[in-house]
Amino acid sequence: MFRQISLCGSLVLLFFFAIPGIPHDNAQSFDRTGVVAVLDDQKAAWNRGDVPAFMNGYWRSPDVTFAGKTGFTRGWDTVFARYQRTYPDQASMGHLEFSELKVRPLGPDAALVLGKWHINRPAGDVGGIFTLVLQKFPEGWRITHDHTTAN
Amino acid sequence: MFRQISLCGSLVLLFFFAIPGIPHDNAQSFDRTGVVAVLDDQKAAWNRGDVPAFMNGYWRSPDVTFAGKTGFTRGWDTVFARYQRTYPDQASMGHLEFSELKVRPLGPDAALVLGKWHINRPAGDVGGIFTLVLQKFPEGWRITHDHTTAN
Repeated sequence: MFRQISLCGSLVLLFFFAIPGIPHDNAQSFDRTGVVAVLDDQKAAWNRGDVPAFMNGYWRSPDVTFAGKTGFTRGWDTVFARYQRTYPDQASMGHLEFSELKVRPLGPDAALVLGKWHINRPAGDVGGIFTLVLQKFPEGWRITHDHTTAN
Repeated sequence: MFRQISLCGSLVLLFFFAIPGIPHDNAQSFDRTGVVAVLDDQKAAWNRGDVPAFMNGYWRSPDVTFAGKTGFTRGWDTVFARYQRTYPDQASMGHLEFSELKVRPLGPDAALVLGKWHINRPAGDVGGIFTLVLQKFPEGWRITHDHTTAN
Protein backbone atom coordinates (compact mmCIF):
# COMPACT_ATOMS: atom_id res chain seq x y z
CA MET A 1 0.00 0.00 0.00
CA PHE A 2 2.88 2.35 0.79
CA ARG A 3 4.25 1.88 -2.70
CA GLN A 4 0.87 2.64 -4.20
CA ILE A 5 0.47 5.80 -2.16
CA SER A 6 4.00 6.78 -3.05
CA LEU A 7 3.30 6.28 -6.76
CA CYS A 8 0.06 8.18 -6.44
CA GLY A 9 1.83 10.97 -4.55
CA SER A 10 4.58 11.16 -7.16
CA LEU A 11 2.09 11.39 -10.00
CA VAL A 12 0.10 14.08 -8.25
CA LEU A 13 3.26 16.00 -7.37
CA LEU A 14 4.44 15.70 -10.97
CA PHE A 15 1.23 17.23 -12.23
CA PHE A 16 1.20 19.86 -9.50
CA PHE A 17 4.66 21.07 -10.42
CA ALA A 18 4.07 20.67 -14.14
CA ILE A 19 1.02 22.91 -14.24
CA PRO A 20 2.39 26.07 -12.63
CA GLY A 21 5.58 25.44 -14.61
CA ILE A 22 3.91 25.69 -18.02
CA PRO A 23 4.30 29.44 -18.65
CA HIS A 24 7.83 29.47 -17.24
CA ASP A 25 9.03 26.43 -19.15
CA ASN A 26 7.53 27.75 -22.35
CA ALA A 27 9.15 31.15 -21.91
CA GLN A 28 12.50 29.43 -21.37
CA SER A 29 12.09 27.07 -24.29
CA PHE A 30 10.33 29.59 -26.53
CA ASP A 31 10.93 28.64 -30.13
CA ARG A 32 12.56 31.89 -31.29
CA THR A 33 14.38 30.03 -34.06
CA GLY A 34 11.09 28.69 -35.47
CA VAL A 35 9.59 32.18 -35.49
CA VAL A 36 12.58 33.83 -37.15
CA ALA A 37 12.75 30.99 -39.72
CA VAL A 38 9.33 32.06 -41.07
CA LEU A 39 10.71 35.50 -41.88
CA ASP A 40 13.97 34.11 -43.26
CA ASP A 41 11.99 31.81 -45.56
CA GLN A 42 9.74 34.67 -46.66
CA LYS A 43 12.74 36.86 -47.48
CA ALA A 44 14.40 34.08 -49.48
CA ALA A 45 11.15 33.34 -51.36
CA TRP A 46 10.59 37.01 -52.18
CA ASN A 47 14.14 37.46 -53.42
CA ARG A 48 13.79 34.57 -55.87
CA GLY A 49 10.43 35.94 -57.10
CA ASP A 50 8.42 33.10 -55.58
CA VAL A 51 5.12 34.60 -54.39
CA PRO A 52 3.48 31.24 -53.45
CA ALA A 53 6.46 30.34 -51.21
CA PHE A 54 6.40 33.86 -49.70
CA MET A 55 2.69 33.42 -48.94
CA ASN A 56 3.45 30.13 -47.19
CA GLY A 57 4.58 32.23 -44.20
CA TYR A 58 1.00 33.31 -43.65
CA TRP A 59 -1.74 31.32 -41.94
CA ARG A 60 -3.66 29.73 -44.81
CA SER A 61 -7.06 30.80 -43.53
CA PRO A 62 -9.90 33.16 -44.40
CA ASP A 63 -9.20 34.69 -40.96
CA VAL A 64 -5.60 35.84 -41.51
CA THR A 65 -5.57 39.64 -41.40
CA PHE A 66 -3.53 42.40 -42.99
CA ALA A 67 -3.52 46.05 -41.93
CA GLY A 68 -2.08 48.65 -44.26
CA LYS A 69 -2.61 51.93 -46.06
CA THR A 70 -5.98 50.82 -47.45
CA GLY A 71 -7.29 49.54 -44.09
CA PHE A 72 -7.85 45.89 -43.22
CA THR A 73 -7.77 42.98 -45.64
CA ARG A 74 -8.83 39.50 -44.56
CA GLY A 75 -8.13 36.07 -46.05
CA TRP A 76 -5.15 34.23 -47.47
CA ASP A 77 -6.66 33.79 -50.96
CA THR A 78 -7.46 37.52 -51.28
CA VAL A 79 -3.95 38.59 -50.37
CA PHE A 80 -2.31 35.94 -52.53
CA ALA A 81 -4.32 37.15 -55.56
CA ARG A 82 -3.34 40.76 -54.80
CA TYR A 83 0.36 39.89 -54.53
CA GLN A 84 0.19 37.99 -57.83
CA ARG A 85 -1.36 41.02 -59.56
CA THR A 86 0.95 43.59 -57.94
CA TYR A 87 4.13 41.57 -58.46
CA PRO A 88 3.90 39.84 -61.84
CA ASP A 89 7.66 39.18 -62.04
CA GLN A 90 10.86 39.16 -60.01
CA ALA A 91 11.91 42.65 -61.22
CA SER A 92 8.73 44.20 -59.78
CA MET A 93 9.41 42.47 -56.44
CA GLY A 94 12.99 43.72 -56.13
CA HIS A 95 15.29 42.69 -53.29
CA LEU A 96 13.78 42.50 -49.79
CA GLU A 97 15.70 42.90 -46.54
CA PHE A 98 14.47 42.86 -42.95
CA SER A 99 16.33 44.62 -40.14
CA GLU A 100 16.09 45.34 -36.41
CA LEU A 101 13.90 42.27 -35.81
CA LYS A 102 12.53 42.04 -32.27
CA VAL A 103 10.78 38.83 -31.21
CA ARG A 104 8.59 38.77 -28.07
CA PRO A 105 6.83 35.62 -26.83
CA LEU A 106 3.13 36.18 -26.07
CA GLY A 107 2.54 32.70 -24.68
CA PRO A 108 3.44 29.12 -25.55
CA ASP A 109 2.06 29.39 -29.09
CA ALA A 110 2.11 33.07 -30.01
CA ALA A 111 4.75 35.69 -30.72
CA LEU A 112 5.00 39.35 -31.64
CA VAL A 113 7.65 40.35 -34.17
CA LEU A 114 8.56 43.97 -34.86
CA GLY A 115 10.95 45.03 -37.56
CA LYS A 116 11.89 47.18 -40.52
CA TRP A 117 11.62 46.21 -44.18
CA HIS A 118 13.35 47.62 -47.23
CA ILE A 119 12.87 46.76 -50.90
CA ASN A 120 15.52 47.75 -53.40
CA ARG A 121 14.04 47.75 -56.93
CA PRO A 122 14.42 49.42 -60.33
CA ALA A 123 11.13 51.34 -59.89
CA GLY A 124 12.50 52.98 -56.72
CA ASP A 125 13.20 51.75 -53.19
CA VAL A 126 10.42 51.39 -50.64
CA GLY A 127 10.48 50.52 -46.97
CA GLY A 128 8.89 50.91 -43.60
CA ILE A 129 8.05 49.04 -40.44
CA PHE A 130 5.87 46.08 -39.52
CA THR A 131 4.10 44.42 -36.64
CA LEU A 132 3.55 40.70 -37.05
CA VAL A 133 1.68 38.26 -34.86
CA LEU A 134 2.71 34.64 -35.34
CA GLN A 135 0.95 31.60 -33.94
CA LYS A 136 2.06 27.99 -33.80
CA PHE A 137 -0.01 25.43 -35.71
CA PRO A 138 0.57 21.69 -36.28
CA GLU A 139 2.27 22.67 -39.56
CA GLY A 140 4.51 25.20 -37.79
CA TRP A 141 4.61 28.94 -37.02
CA ARG A 142 2.53 31.12 -39.31
CA ILE A 143 1.81 34.86 -39.47
CA THR A 144 -1.81 35.37 -38.40
CA HIS A 145 -1.77 39.19 -38.52
CA ASP A 146 0.45 41.62 -40.43
CA HIS A 147 0.36 45.40 -39.98
CA THR A 148 2.80 46.95 -42.42
CA THR A 149 3.44 50.66 -42.81
CA ALA A 150 5.48 52.27 -45.58
CA ASN A 151 7.61 55.30 -44.75
CA MET B 1 -6.96 0.41 -0.28
CA PHE B 2 -9.62 0.46 -2.95
CA ARG B 3 -10.72 3.88 -1.76
CA GLN B 4 -7.16 5.15 -1.85
CA ILE B 5 -6.58 3.83 -5.36
CA SER B 6 -9.88 5.33 -6.40
CA LEU B 7 -8.90 8.71 -4.96
CA CYS B 8 -5.50 8.46 -6.59
CA GLY B 9 -7.11 7.50 -9.91
CA SER B 10 -9.55 10.37 -9.70
CA LEU B 11 -6.80 12.87 -9.00
CA VAL B 12 -4.64 11.59 -11.84
CA LEU B 13 -7.64 11.55 -14.20
CA LEU B 14 -8.53 15.08 -13.13
CA PHE B 15 -5.04 16.29 -14.01
CA PHE B 16 -4.93 14.27 -17.21
CA PHE B 17 -8.12 15.85 -18.46
CA ALA B 18 -7.22 19.26 -17.12
CA ILE B 19 -3.93 19.51 -19.01
CA PRO B 20 -5.07 18.90 -22.58
CA GLY B 21 -8.06 21.07 -21.71
CA ILE B 22 -6.02 24.19 -20.91
CA PRO B 23 -6.05 25.85 -24.33
CA HIS B 24 -9.69 24.94 -24.87
CA ASP B 25 -10.80 26.11 -21.44
CA ASN B 26 -8.89 29.33 -21.80
CA ALA B 27 -10.38 30.00 -25.22
CA GLN B 28 -13.83 29.40 -23.77
CA SER B 29 -13.25 31.52 -20.68
CA PHE B 30 -11.15 34.13 -22.47
CA ASP B 31 -11.58 37.47 -20.74
CA ARG B 32 -12.91 39.44 -23.72
CA THR B 33 -14.69 41.83 -21.35
CA GLY B 34 -11.44 42.67 -19.56
CA VAL B 35 -9.69 43.35 -22.86
CA VAL B 36 -12.46 45.56 -24.25
CA ALA B 37 -12.68 47.43 -20.92
CA VAL B 38 -9.11 48.73 -21.46
CA LEU B 39 -10.21 50.39 -24.70
CA ASP B 40 -13.47 51.66 -23.22
CA ASP B 41 -11.54 53.23 -20.34
CA GLN B 42 -9.02 54.78 -22.75
CA LYS B 43 -11.79 56.29 -24.85
CA ALA B 44 -13.55 57.73 -21.79
CA ALA B 45 -10.25 59.16 -20.46
CA TRP B 46 -9.37 60.73 -23.82
CA ASN B 47 -12.81 62.30 -24.15
CA ARG B 48 -12.53 64.01 -20.77
CA GLY B 49 -9.02 65.27 -21.64
CA ASP B 50 -7.29 63.01 -19.10
CA VAL B 51 -3.97 61.95 -20.65
CA PRO B 52 -2.64 60.16 -17.51
CA ALA B 53 -5.80 57.99 -17.30
CA PHE B 54 -5.57 57.32 -21.06
CA MET B 55 -1.96 56.21 -20.62
CA ASN B 56 -3.05 53.83 -17.86
CA GLY B 57 -4.21 51.47 -20.63
CA TYR B 58 -0.57 50.91 -21.62
CA TRP B 59 1.90 48.60 -19.90
CA ARG B 60 3.86 50.92 -17.60
CA SER B 61 7.24 49.67 -18.74
CA PRO B 62 10.30 50.84 -20.67
CA ASP B 63 9.51 47.87 -22.98
CA VAL B 64 6.05 48.93 -24.18
CA THR B 65 6.29 49.67 -27.90
CA PHE B 66 4.53 51.98 -30.34
CA ALA B 67 4.73 51.76 -34.12
CA GLY B 68 3.62 54.73 -36.18
CA LYS B 69 4.47 57.19 -38.90
CA THR B 70 7.82 58.02 -37.34
CA GLY B 71 8.84 54.38 -36.81
CA PHE B 72 9.10 52.67 -33.43
CA THR B 73 8.95 54.38 -30.05
CA ARG B 74 9.71 52.49 -26.87
CA GLY B 75 8.85 53.21 -23.23
CA TRP B 76 5.81 54.41 -21.30
CA ASP B 77 7.49 57.59 -19.98
CA THR B 78 8.58 58.67 -23.49
CA VAL B 79 5.10 58.28 -24.94
CA PHE B 80 3.41 59.91 -21.96
CA ALA B 81 5.66 62.97 -22.33
CA ARG B 82 4.91 63.12 -26.06
CA TYR B 83 1.15 62.92 -25.50
CA GLN B 84 1.36 65.69 -22.90
CA ARG B 85 3.23 67.95 -25.35
CA THR B 86 1.02 67.10 -28.36
CA TYR B 87 -2.27 67.38 -26.46
CA PRO B 88 -1.95 70.28 -24.00
CA ASP B 89 -5.74 70.59 -23.52
CA GLN B 90 -9.05 68.84 -24.14
CA ALA B 91 -9.78 70.86 -27.32
CA SER B 92 -6.57 69.58 -28.97
CA MET B 93 -7.58 66.01 -28.08
CA GLY B 94 -11.07 66.24 -29.55
CA HIS B 95 -13.59 63.43 -29.35
CA LEU B 96 -12.31 59.86 -29.86
CA GLU B 97 -14.38 56.94 -31.10
CA PHE B 98 -13.36 53.34 -31.82
CA SER B 99 -15.25 51.14 -34.28
CA GLU B 100 -15.18 47.66 -35.80
CA LEU B 101 -13.24 46.22 -32.83
CA LYS B 102 -12.09 42.64 -33.35
CA VAL B 103 -10.64 40.76 -30.36
CA ARG B 104 -8.65 37.55 -30.90
CA PRO B 105 -7.20 35.48 -28.04
CA LEU B 106 -3.52 34.62 -28.53
CA GLY B 107 -3.26 32.43 -25.44
CA PRO B 108 -4.37 32.56 -21.83
CA ASP B 109 -2.77 35.95 -21.18
CA ALA B 110 -2.50 37.69 -24.55
CA ALA B 111 -4.90 39.16 -27.08
CA LEU B 112 -4.84 40.88 -30.44
CA VAL B 113 -7.25 43.77 -31.00
CA LEU B 114 -7.84 45.31 -34.41
CA GLY B 115 -10.01 48.34 -34.96
CA LYS B 116 -10.59 51.76 -36.42
CA TRP B 117 -10.20 55.08 -34.63
CA HIS B 118 -11.65 58.49 -35.40
CA ILE B 119 -11.03 61.83 -33.70
CA ASN B 120 -13.45 64.67 -34.24
CA ARG B 121 -11.78 67.98 -33.37
CA PRO B 122 -11.83 71.68 -34.24
CA ALA B 123 -8.45 71.48 -36.02
CA GLY B 124 -9.86 68.84 -38.41
CA ASP B 125 -10.86 65.20 -38.06
CA VAL B 126 -8.27 62.44 -38.12
CA GLY B 127 -8.61 58.68 -38.12
CA GLY B 128 -7.21 55.37 -39.19
CA ILE B 129 -6.67 51.82 -38.03
CA PHE B 130 -4.77 50.12 -35.23
CA THR B 131 -3.28 46.80 -34.20
CA LEU B 132 -2.99 46.34 -30.44
CA VAL B 133 -1.41 43.54 -28.47
CA LEU B 134 -2.67 43.28 -24.90
CA GLN B 135 -1.23 41.09 -22.16
CA LYS B 136 -2.59 40.23 -18.74
CA PHE B 137 -0.61 41.38 -15.70
CA PRO B 138 -1.41 41.12 -11.98
CA GLU B 139 -2.84 44.67 -12.27
CA GLY B 140 -5.01 43.68 -15.27
CA TRP B 141 -4.89 43.74 -19.08
CA ARG B 142 -2.54 46.32 -20.57
CA ILE B 143 -1.53 47.26 -24.12
CA THR B 144 2.05 46.08 -24.65
CA HIS B 145 2.29 47.05 -28.32
CA ASP B 146 0.38 49.60 -30.39
CA HIS B 147 0.70 50.00 -34.16
CA THR B 148 -1.47 52.90 -35.25
CA THR B 149 -1.82 54.16 -38.82
CA ALA B 150 -3.57 57.36 -39.88
CA ASN B 151 -5.54 57.40 -43.13
